[in-house]
Amino acid sequence: MAEGMRKVYLDHAAATPILPEALEAMLPYLKDVFGNPTCLHSWGDGPRDAMEESRVRVAALIGASADGIIFTASGSEANNLAIKGIAFAKQTQGKHIVISAVEHFSVLQSCKRLERWGFETTLVPVDKYGMVDPQDVAKSIRKDTILVSVMHANSEVGTIQPIKEIAALVKNTGAAFHTDAVATAGAVPVDVKEMGVDALSLAANKFYGPKGAGALWLRRGVPVIPQVDGGVQEGGRRAGTDNVPGIVGMGKAAEIAAVDLKRRMEHMVPLRDQLIKGLSERIGQVVFTGHPTQRLPDTASFCVRFVEGEAMLMHLDMLGIAASSGSSCTSRALKASHVLIAMGLSHEIAQGSLLLTVGKDTQPDDVYYAIEALPPIVDRLRKMSPLHTKFIKEQGEVR
Amino acid sequence: MAEGMRKVYLDHAAATPILPEALEAMLPYLKDVFGNPTCLHSWGDGPRDAMEESRVRVAALIGASADGIIFTASGSEANNLAIKGIAFAKQTQGKHIVISAVEHFSVLQSCKRLERWGFETTLVPVDKYGMVDPQDVAKSIRKDTILVSVMHANSEVGTIQPIKEIAALVKNTGAAFHTDAVATAGAVPVDVKEMGVDALSLAANKFYGPKGAGALWLRRGVPVIPQVDGGVQEGGRRAGTDNVPGIVGMGKAAEIAAVDLKRRMEHMVPLRDQLIKGLSERIGQVVFTGHPTQRLPDTASFCVRFVEGEAMLMHLDMLGIAASSGSSCTSRALKASHVLIAMGLSHEIAQGSLLLTVGKDTQPDDVYYAIEALPPIVDRLRKMSPLHTKFIKEQGEVR
Repeated sequence: MAEGMRKVYLDHAAATPILPEALEAMLPYLKDVFGNPTCLHSWGDGPRDAMEESRVRVAALIGASADGIIFTASGSEANNLAIKGIAFAKQTQGKHIVISAVEHFSVLQSCKRLERWGFETTLVPVDKYGMVDPQDVAKSIRKDTILVSVMHANSEVGTIQPIKEIAALVKNTGAAFHTDAVATAGAVPVDVKEMGVDALSLAANKFYGPKGAGALWLRRGVPVIPQVDGGVQEGGRRAGTDNVPGIVGMGKAAEIAAVDLKRRMEHMVPLRDQLIKGLSERIGQVVFTGHPTQRLPDTASFCVRFVEGEAMLMHLDMLGIAASSGSSCTSRALKASHVLIAMGLSHEIAQGSLLLTVGKDTQPDDVYYAIEALPPIVDRLRKMSPLHTKFIKEQGEVR
Repeated sequence: MAEGMRKVYLDHAAATPILPEALEAMLPYLKDVFGNPTCLHSWGDGPRDAMEESRVRVAALIGASADGIIFTASGSEANNLAIKGIAFAKQTQGKHIVISAVEHFSVLQSCKRLERWGFETTLVPVDKYGMVDPQDVAKSIRKDTILVSVMHANSEVGTIQPIKEIAALVKNTGAAFHTDAVATAGAVPVDVKEMGVDALSLAANKFYGPKGAGALWLRRGVPVIPQVDGGVQEGGRRAGTDNVPGIVGMGKAAEIAAVDLKRRMEHMVPLRDQLIKGLSERIGQVVFTGHPTQRLPDTASFCVRFVEGEAMLMHLDMLGIAASSGSSCTSRALKASHVLIAMGLSHEIAQGSLLLTVGKDTQPDDVYYAIEALPPIVDRLRKMSPLHTKFIKEQGEVR
């Protein structure tokens, strides 16, 4: 990317800039107000009060009470704590876990890890839109099922799951119901009471808060075994010196997200739709991915046939455009997304995954720039591609 | 603590202020350079480069190679990852762990947690100075010992352990040797090669870096099972979006600590000794704790008889002085310190624990202020205490 060139950031799923107000709120705790919140002297008072204020703000964003919030260092840590922590705490009741096939790797791999300790995981399938059928979840629940985890929305294809319906079916089965709301908390309305969940993960850097700050909310009475042992912090549920600045930034970002949510959605949805429409029209052989309506307001996702997702990203980058080809947690693994495969797409098609995520500050011009930029890139890549012949052949057949 | 009053911060063991240079280094990553380091576009480049530069700097502080560094959110998380991660990775070889009786709770409780999975822990005792005898470690090692963990220094009593001697005895036993250097890295010279350890934990907020940033260094070939599963970050050994600003701040603080180490020690040792001498002389029935010479340069620790540690802290606080009564990770648990008990002190004496830790910016006047302030507080507390009669009686006997 050359200096001075236009820059268009369409990878808000991977990271968001920190709100100036959130940074402003953090700064005192990066400077003079540096005490350890667990201290028994005045230096601990400011940090402790600020942390508790943040806990209230983060809880308010998800309609929860503050005492259920456990601050973590990331959404992934929150998911790990939910899955492994609840599973280990409830293992005397059973060792069966139900999750969807499109969960984030921090949920999937936590279950994989648990399998080494004799736990068993059932993967609930999704339809071609990446949507879970609540009845499929219900059918997967057994007498020894202790935990069900279905994400609120998938950040790779944007599909929002019917969490409320799933929660209603899980209720009274004896299993705890966790949802990974990392992609939704701060982006769409999230209310733990309304949804009926027992546990919910969220991350600050998805709603213009700092990196290094996440949280797990647990309904009162849901047991959890800590992943980080050894301190009184977070009610003994997560040891380690509290990241006060990060927590304060998360709190401020949550407070602002709650107020600004509707406006942000109204701003982003048309831009998202413009991307989906513009690129679908201008690029041949493009498969739109995810649910057409039940989707994140910021997410435009596709598979572009006969092109490698990574190659598109690099060419877009040369034009100053940031995009993604799937989860940022696995982007360097260069494997076909398990989400797209679970939706029934072939490995060949899944390789051309492209994810564009707009933000609260994205402008229509940014979107037009991307829509103009991408088709020639795709053309060029297809011409250079060993799949070109196949493409030409198929074009002949299709058109 | 009244506004405008003199403030003397003598609790550097609990938290240190962030170096202005470290905050300066962090700020770009809290503002414009916000990309996710795992991204495949230019927005990820700056954060990724900065992280890797920090990795080199943190490694340099401990004489290690950068590829062994796993960034974590705290020293406690690093200790948990070391203990549980190595134990689970090596469990086919055996399930026995050796640690000292004075380890931080993040090590002790990790071992306790492992006991639920059939692991067994041997606690090596300490002498009255809190010192481990390397021969006691050697004697505790069995054929099924897979891990030995002895802290480099104890932050409650300041005693520095003979890690090099212990490492030499652990070598070639088949056990990995971990040391918790949270209290020492950045405070005294630490060199993993010189020490001969296989794994070492450190935390940024102990050397004027930010909270929320720690690291575990692992010698190449030491296996570890991640505690946070699900992402490519940190070589797959710790998932979750990287806390880039925290990591950058840690790197800068490490770089400066390495340069400034000798000067800081020369500045702090006389202040520490002044505290030890002044308070030992002016307060009757005070027990100096820890090793007289093999101790942290910043740590003055005592047990004041017939007084509750917490009461002293609150009265000191009213005079604007920050001190501690043990580990900040357990300070709100109000239990007698396991460290002091392991050193052979009675519960009654251990209750009067007082820990004063100077910093690189502490001035002689601060120390004099504390030395003047404490004796009248102790006198007053003793007069109010139900133990007063006992004290008077013992005074009669002792004097």
